Amino acid sequence: MDLRILGTILNAEARDGSARAFRWLHHGLLVLGLVAVVELTLQSTPIDRRLLVDMALLVTAFFAAEWLLRLLAAPRLATPPGRPAARRRYLLSFLGLVDLVSGWSIPLALLAGLPASEAATLGVLWMLKLTRYVAGFALIGRVLHNERGALLSVLAAFAIVLLLAGTAEYLLERGGQPQTFGSLPAALWWCIVTLTTTGYGDAIPATDLGRVIASLVMILGIAIFALWAGILASGFAAEIRRRDFLRTWALVARVPLFKQLGAQVIAEVARLLRPRRLPAGAPLMRKGEPGDCMYFIVDGEVEVALEPQPVRLGQGAFLGEMALITGEPRSASVLVRRSAQLLALDIADFRALAGQHPELTSAIEAEAARRRAKAPS
Amino acid sequence: MDLRILGTILNAEARDGSARAFRWLHHGLLVLGLVAVVELTLQSTPIDRRLLVDMALLVTAFFAAEWLLRLLAAPRLATPPGRPAARRRYLLSFLGLVDLVSGWSIPLALLAGLPASEAATLGVLWMLKLTRYVAGFALIGRVLHNERGALLSVLAAFAIVLLLAGTAEYLLERGGQPQTFGSLPAALWWCIVTLTTTGYGDAIPATDLGRVIASLVMILGIAIFALWAGILASGFAAEIRRRDFLRTWALVARVPLFKQLGAQVIAEVARLLRPRRLPAGAPLMRKGEPGDCMYFIVDGEVEVALEPQPVRLGQGAFLGEMALITGEPRSASVLVRRSAQLLALDIADFRALAGQHPELTSAIEAEAARRRAKAPS
Amino acid sequence: MDLRILGTILNAEARDGSARAFRWLHHGLLVLGLVAVVELTLQSTPIDRRLLVDMALLVTAFFAAEWLLRLLAAPRLATPPGRPAARRRYLLSFLGLVDLVSGWSIPLALLAGLPASEAATLGVLWMLKLTRYVAGFALIGRVLHNERGALLSVLAAFAIVLLLAGTAEYLLERGGQPQTFGSLPAALWWCIVTLTTTGYGDAIPATDLGRVIASLVMILGIAIFALWAGILASGFAAEIRRRDFLRTWALVARVPLFKQLGAQVIAEVARLLRPRRLPAGAPLMRKGEPGDCMYFIVDGEVEVALEPQPVRLGQGAFLGEMALITGEPRSASVLVRRSAQLLALDIADFRALAGQHPELTSAIEAEAARRRAKAPS
Amino acid sequence: MDLRILGTILNAEARDGSARAFRWLHHGLLVLGLVAVVELTLQSTPIDRRLLVDMALLVTAFFAAEWLLRLLAAPRLATPPGRPAARRRYLLSFLGLVDLVSGWSIPLALLAGLPASEAATLGVLWMLKLTRYVAGFALIGRVLHNERGALLSVLAAFAIVLLLAGTAEYLLERGGQPQTFGSLPAALWWCIVTLTTTGYGDAIPATDLGRVIASLVMILGIAIFALWAGILASGFAAEIRRRDFLRTWALVARVPLFKQLGAQVIAEVARLLRPRRLPAGAPLMRKGEPGDCMYFIVDGEVEVALEPQPVRLGQGAFLGEMALITGEPRSASVLVRRSAQLLALDIADFRALAGQHPELTSAIEAEAARRRAKAPS
Repeated sequence: MDLRILGTILNAEARDGSARAFRWLHHGLLVLGLVAVVELTLQSTPIDRRLLVDMALLVTAFFAAEWLLRLLAAPRLATPPGRPAARRRYLLSFLGLVDLVSGWSIPLALLAGLPASEAATLGVLWMLKLTRYVAGFALIGRVLHNERGALLSVLAAFAIVLLLAGTAEYLLERGGQPQTFGSLPAALWWCIVTLTTTGYGDAIPATDLGRVIASLVMILGIAIFALWAGILASGFAAEIRRRDFLRTWALVARVPLFKQLGAQVIAEVARLLRPRRLPAGAPLMRKGEPGDCMYFIVDGEVEVALEPQPVRLGQGAFLGEMALITGEPRSASVLVRRSAQLLALDIADFRALAGQHPELTSAIEAEAARRRAKAPS
Repeated sequence: MDLRILGTILNAEARDGSARAFRWLHHGLLVLGLVAVVELTLQSTPIDRRLLVDMALLVTAFFAAEWLLRLLAAPRLATPPGRPAARRRYLLSFLGLVDLVSGWSIPLALLAGLPASEAATLGVLWMLKLTRYVAGFALIGRVLHNERGALLSVLAAFAIVLLLAGTAEYLLERGGQPQTFGSLPAALWWCIVTLTTTGYGDAIPATDLGRVIASLVMILGIAIFALWAGILASGFAAEIRRRDFLRTWALVARVPLFKQLGAQVIAEVARLLRPRRLPAGAPLMRKGEPGDCMYFIVDGEVEVALEPQPVRLGQGAFLGEMALITGEPRSASVLVRRSAQLLALDIADFRALAGQHPELTSAIEAEAARRRAKAPS
Repeated sequence: MDLRILGTILNAEARDGSARAFRWLHHGLLVLGLVAVVELTLQSTPIDRRLLVDMALLVTAFFAAEWLLRLLAAPRLATPPGRPAARRRYLLSFLGLVDLVSGWSIPLALLAGLPASEAATLGVLWMLKLTRYVAGFALIGRVLHNERGALLSVLAAFAIVLLLAGTAEYLLERGGQPQTFGSLPAALWWCIVTLTTTGYGDAIPATDLGRVIASLVMILGIAIFALWAGILASGFAAEIRRRDFLRTWALVARVPLFKQLGAQVIAEVARLLRPRRLPAGAPLMRKGEPGDCMYFIVDGEVEVALEPQPVRLGQGAFLGEMALITGEPRSASVLVRRSAQLLALDIADFRALAGQHPELTSAIEAEAARRRAKAPS
Repeated sequence: MDLRILGTILNAEARDGSARAFRWLHHGLLVLGLVAVVELTLQSTPIDRRLLVDMALLVTAFFAAEWLLRLLAAPRLATPPGRPAARRRYLLSFLGLVDLVSGWSIPLALLAGLPASEAATLGVLWMLKLTRYVAGFALIGRVLHNERGALLSVLAAFAIVLLLAGTAEYLLERGGQPQTFGSLPAALWWCIVTLTTTGYGDAIPATDLGRVIASLVMILGIAIFALWAGILASGFAAEIRRRDFLRTWALVARVPLFKQLGAQVIAEVARLLRPRRLPAGAPLMRKGEPGDCMYFIVDGEVEVALEPQPVRLGQGAFLGEMALITGEPRSASVLVRRSAQLLALDIADFRALAGQHPELTSAIEAEAARRRAKAPS
């Protein structure tokens, strides 16, 4: 098979029909395989055990083959495509190791002589393959990475409380309950069950002082919880603010007028944008009005009253840019259809910027000549 | 009955007496019905069972009829009223399905031959009718929708941890505790009870390694919790900021002077407003002072020292707008009564805006002629 | 006793020696009383029961008398003092009811014939008296009040999940476990124990479908938790921002120069302030430098190098205001001692403001004449 | 040994080889000691008990000696070094007490006649020594300190709920369950286990009203949790914003041009900086372009296309400052390598600042003469 085609099929973000079909097959087999693995561990199951083993082996074969194909197609899946040593990089990457471990642990277990119904249990590792497809892991990962200092400090506090309180209970309770508090590991087990507020109830302090310490442990448990939640909440707020800026930047970078002017001008423009939220039904522009700004649509939808029929613009579109170029009045009315978040760039800000970057003016004139009378301005 | 009257009665937001009476009846019957349903499941109850069944059937009849009436009145309840196909839209809407299911499942169960005391248990579905009346669900729903990516990623991480840790415990503990860890579903049950820190205590790992893994599961449990809390906290902050802007927008849009000038001017004004919080007792304006801004009241209360008796203005009111129009000194003193959150619009900002939108000036003059000597300016 | 003296003693915020002594006595008796009440419920106690009863009765007498005294002193405790009908207002206020209930429930129980050791149990109500002295309750109360809409919506969602999931488990499990799932109230008890992730383990679903539903309930439990935490986190952030503005306002309002100019100028100044944080050891002003701004100290400490010995200024102080008045160079050097949060008011901002409020200029000249050569400028 | 060398070795932040080696030894012995202590409490252990006791005694000796050495080296470890009374300050400092308690409690226990294997249990106190090395404790400590008012208020609410609900259950349940609810301390134990949602299941209300109250306690439990999380989340957000300003300040303070001008100019510059985030691959400067600002790198990496080979600059570096000095065009192109967070200082802002601080201009000229043709400008 052509590597290029294979690369497209295996690309987790490609929108081709073949790539979509592969993803459906992949996820379908993942579910099928997991059901088989789980059913096989039951004493009695409504499905024939032979069939379940076959299902598990089929899925095993698929995932083992997928690893080989990804290794083969690695040069086309790398960014940029054709990067040298892409195969070795895939082999050692996190996702490559996940593919290897989840794809080949059952075949290896079978080779090592385990019966198929036992080896199939390793199929739960297929679950790890989800990491390639869940987009939000990257965001969560960045937040955890940014806040690792504070999060690990809370974990250290957790460890200190755990060891001190566990030892205190060991000393206090080992006399009365040698079974459950007779050694430090046993007392630590109690302490972790309590500190996380899980509370199985298999070990419970009985002395008065032991119960007072246990109460403190429970309260510290919810405090540790709350600390983690607090750290992560402020971490998410910061990370999402950053992501929003990059999204704004990307919106601006798509405007032909700005694209050619380089990152500095784009960042400058992104900084000048003012958020403006309009409810559904609000008029955004009126035909013949003087145009004093252009808009980028972050979300929502607007309708441009063009002839012969209106045009709808949604997320990522921009409009009114002719106002920045020609200064002529708006050529069509625009109405907000679905409550829209817009970013507005004022003609005044834009002109001050053009004064600092004279290349902007020549770009404007070329653009104006090309687009005149095309969009509402 | 006239559909218009019926539409008003059934409208969840209408403030007419009839609509209020209907809501009281609705909520009262809901409580009465739920009490009957719950009591009917008890072995012995102080109330006569016959009476309880009758109560449940009465409430059933009411809710079944309500669905029919809402279907009938759908054209008047739709926005905008009289929208075509409103009945079909109601039938298939979320609230329409809730009304259908909660109103007609008991009648259907009775038709299918279930005894009334059994069928009545389905009355708990009436609880779903609350969704129409709890305003905050919309806000929560928007936050969950905005953050769905990150929330689902955490759920995926939850599933991965669940399956891997469950399998590990299954392998480690099935020898010693075949009853509670003898199959993957049983081990997964243990794992979910532990990962959510519920900790029933019906299944507890006994091996050393099993307990170490269980400890990790508990700590990951509180981390998953904290992640969700963190994501939702930053999501709520963003959503409430957005709601506040729309509220400001709505405050400005109610001022006659701005209303007629369209969404763009209103958004512009909303952007120019500066929040100003004053404690109770602080003077806001002094009679005869030159007026340099107008105010919108977000919350709290101010008192205008008018003759013959002072006037109190609260949430949503605005004052001092004559200063923007005539430039004359304040015609009355104003004092803050209850700690007030105000939005101030400076005369300078207002005039710059009027320069860009000359239609504002003519609106001002018309307004000034109409309102002169009416409010403190 | 003079009502004025009594009013001072009972005032929870007064800093007089007598008021402090009263608070110590109040808190000491509260602890003593609670210890007695708790000890009295034990079968065997190291302390004589007779003594415990006497302790409880002593504290009872004190709190009963306190209510009478507060009622007597109400006119002096009201804000403003001497307000008419202050006694009736106290009687019906929240704190008045707390004082009445916690002070007089034991005497009433004794009158009704309960033995003293039984009646003493009502002494736990004394705990409510803490509400007067915990300052943070006001902040928490405001946040809960502001966010009540969203919080109650989550509670409504909680109730819906509770009823639906409880009924599902009732239908599924009542056959196998008639003892613990045999009625709706019993199933609801299980559901609330699970939904709050408490997990006593007294009722546990045994059917497969019952366990799947229980798993969903646990996950929804942590989601409800996380929603509350998220709502409260953004609510606290908003409330604390608001409190900080009021604190800034109060700082500015204490400067003689601004105090006399009224709330509008003060709010204007508070808005113009720019936060500036300096680490310990950083020089803030140098003697002879031109002074271009004045500072308000939010926290931390600075040292003014005055002769013959340096002066330290801490939270709430301000310095450099002569620069705004005379325009002369700084008359002394200033060094940051403990990492300080300052608010700076620029001379340019101040002068623009003075242009709008000409009364500021005359205030400046009077002030300058009075304070010249007193503080570093 | 020279105190200076000893001071360096013991300094927790020093980067010398000897200090690093000491830290490795310290942490290694800490782990070794804790393992020995834990193993000694087991009935049967795979390791010889004699060896374990020896290990524990070795670690004991190390930590006891460490305290002595730190006391000796205190004058060199103090800030600033050589501060008088440094030894007494160390003795009474928090970390000094931790060192004393964790280092000398086992020797004292041995002196008091405890057998070594018993005394070794006190070795868990060594865990406290982590506090010196976990940097994030300072941040967490500051947040807890800033928010102590609100956090303690929640704790007070916790105590009030605890006492009132505990008493209610005591009154309701003591008849039916004298073992678990027969005294107030027993009922309070139940209440704290429930209010923290731990839920051991050792005490469970059985009466109907008792269960309703227990349900309220569980819901209040998650509310208290959520309150703490909310308070801490907004506290962390504020503290991290503050830390970021100090980090910006420190970045600016390292630029030779600003360093000599004192804290006020540095704070002024830090305030003027505008954050700018650029994705990997974006061009930051082009050779020959007019330079209009300088950059500070907060994180990420940029590459300066210098001859003969490019130079990479990372966190903490700054570039383009020649533009502020000479006004000549950029002398080299710069490309972003890893997504970078930059702080930009505009030439316009810088010049306005220089107008207010004329000493900046002379510093500029001296700097320009020294650095000309050294860095891209």
